[in-house]
Amino acid sequence: MFSVDAKTRLFALFGDPVAHSLSPVMQNWFMQRFGVNGVYVAFQVPASRLCQAMATIPALGFGGVNLTIPHKEAALQWIDMQDEQVEILQAANTLRPVDGEIHAAVTDPEGFILSLGEKRDRFRHASVVMIGAGGSARSIAYALCALGVSRLAIMNRTIERAESLARYTRERLNLSQTIALQPADFTDALASADIIINTTSVGMHPFTSETLVADPRVFRSGQFVYDLIYNPAITRLLHDARREGAEIQNGLDMLIFQGLLSLNIWQQEKYELNPADLKTVRRLLKNRLGTNE
Amino acid sequence: MFSVDAKTRLFALFGDPVAHSLSPVMQNWFMQRFGVNGVYVAFQVPASRLCQAMATIPALGFGGVNLTIPHKEAALQWIDMQDEQVEILQAANTLRPVDGEIHAAVTDPEGFILSLGEKRDRFRHASVVMIGAGGSARSIAYALCALGVSRLAIMNRTIERAESLARYTRERLNLSQTIALQPADFTDALASADIIINTTSVGMHPFTSETLVADPRVFRSGQFVYDLIYNPAITRLLHDARREGAEIQNGLDMLIFQGLLSLNIWQQEKYELNPADLKTVRRLLKNRLGTNE
Repeated sequence: MFSVDAKTRLFALFGDPVAHSLSPVMQNWFMQRFGVNGVYVAFQVPASRLCQAMATIPALGFGGVNLTIPHKEAALQWIDMQDEQVEILQAANTLRPVDGEIHAAVTDPEGFILSLGEKRDRFRHASVVMIGAGGSARSIAYALCALGVSRLAIMNRTIERAESLARYTRERLNLSQTIALQPADFTDALASADIIINTTSVGMHPFTSETLVADPRVFRSGQFVYDLIYNPAITRLLHDARREGAEIQNGLDMLIFQGLLSLNIWQQEKYELNPADLKTVRRLLKNRLGTNE
Repeated sequence: MFSVDAKTRLFALFGDPVAHSLSPVMQNWFMQRFGVNGVYVAFQVPASRLCQAMATIPALGFGGVNLTIPHKEAALQWIDMQDEQVEILQAANTLRPVDGEIHAAVTDPEGFILSLGEKRDRFRHASVVMIGAGGSARSIAYALCALGVSRLAIMNRTIERAESLARYTRERLNLSQTIALQPADFTDALASADIIINTTSVGMHPFTSETLVADPRVFRSGQFVYDLIYNPAITRLLHDARREGAEIQNGLDMLIFQGLLSLNIWQQEKYELNPADLKTVRRLLKNRLGTNE
């Protein structure tokens, strides 16, 4: 049984909103599974109070902290050390207190890669269309470079943001074959892509009928379509893609693996989920989503 | 099963040391029993860092905080409102955040009274010797006045402290029949007392062979001897008293009831422990003590 005693350490999520976060349920399951004497609690921290919240980390001796929207970039002004990925992405989701200092890391790119399992091989030399150009898109772009894709086309409603991320991807991530798509080219690019990844929140609960891919005929067998959304489990985008024969994946496993990586950073461990663990966590989170809306 | 989700609120203990505190196990049991979506964690907060720790209460939106040694008096400089008992005792163990302010309360006197159960009636018009003159003694003196004792004699190694507490008890608590015992009078006072209460840590684990009552012949049938220590369950003092026919009680139930009162203050509820609950909590804490040393 999960129990808290006087030696239990606190782990925290800072974000706003956090009331529907799955991280507490997931991280407390991990801690029980791997025998970590910790408890993980979500704190609603408005942007205006992030400074005070950051000061609580050394004051209370936290075991570790996760950051989510809207703090992933802003928190960097109060950290003492950052790893190379944080420096490149200018965003962190994992803070590790070390001797009164705060070290920052980011687990999103590696979490995305681990979520692919054996599908990882499909990315080498692939042609990818990524929908969205925000913070998540930047982390995915980082992962795509590591996975060895050959071409990346960024599709976004605001073209300037797509251009900015494309430039960043070429210059900082060294993926020279990156372009920002013009609206007139959306359909052709999607239809010819090996892999399509949605990094936006379009289609997320409760607006489940929305999609940024208006014409489902761009999907086809042989394609792989990944949606970072996990609520609903099958977005309109994934539904349309699957109907046309594409292989699909939602964002639940990425959530799970980036969380596991955070715990590994805090504990300086290499905990791994075996297939039964992964099934259990997925079921736990799906059940939670079912009652969480 | 005890579970933490994104709506779980944090409750905390600030003290130094806290590694052997029973409060986390106890409060988490209470929260599960009464359906409070909270988790209670102990934080080791040195006196030099109390200011920073107090600032975390509004920053993180705590559900409530307990204070223990050495913070019960010092914390008062950062609170916004205090109830009358805190004002009189100049000490608090329960902080309740209310709209960005911190309200302070103290549950020790009422916890002591509730711990007596039906034995409460023995205190009316009784003659009491209280051993010790520190913070706990002050809370017990407050309770003794509420219980209607007729005479209180304070026995302490440092006579000046006994005199100071006796003066306080006469003047602030209006128990005019309060005296500080001189060493030459210890034995006679103990032998003639209806009730003897130890508020010091003498006899506590690991120095279990110690006692401030050198001559066990002062104990007798008809007396009631209460030791605030609960580790060990039977101190040398209680052991000696019981052997001479006195009725005895240790501090475990006081710990339980002052904790329950804290939770009631935080939640603005009137949770009560039925006899089966009380048995369960006692067993839980005893088991914890057994593995905690």
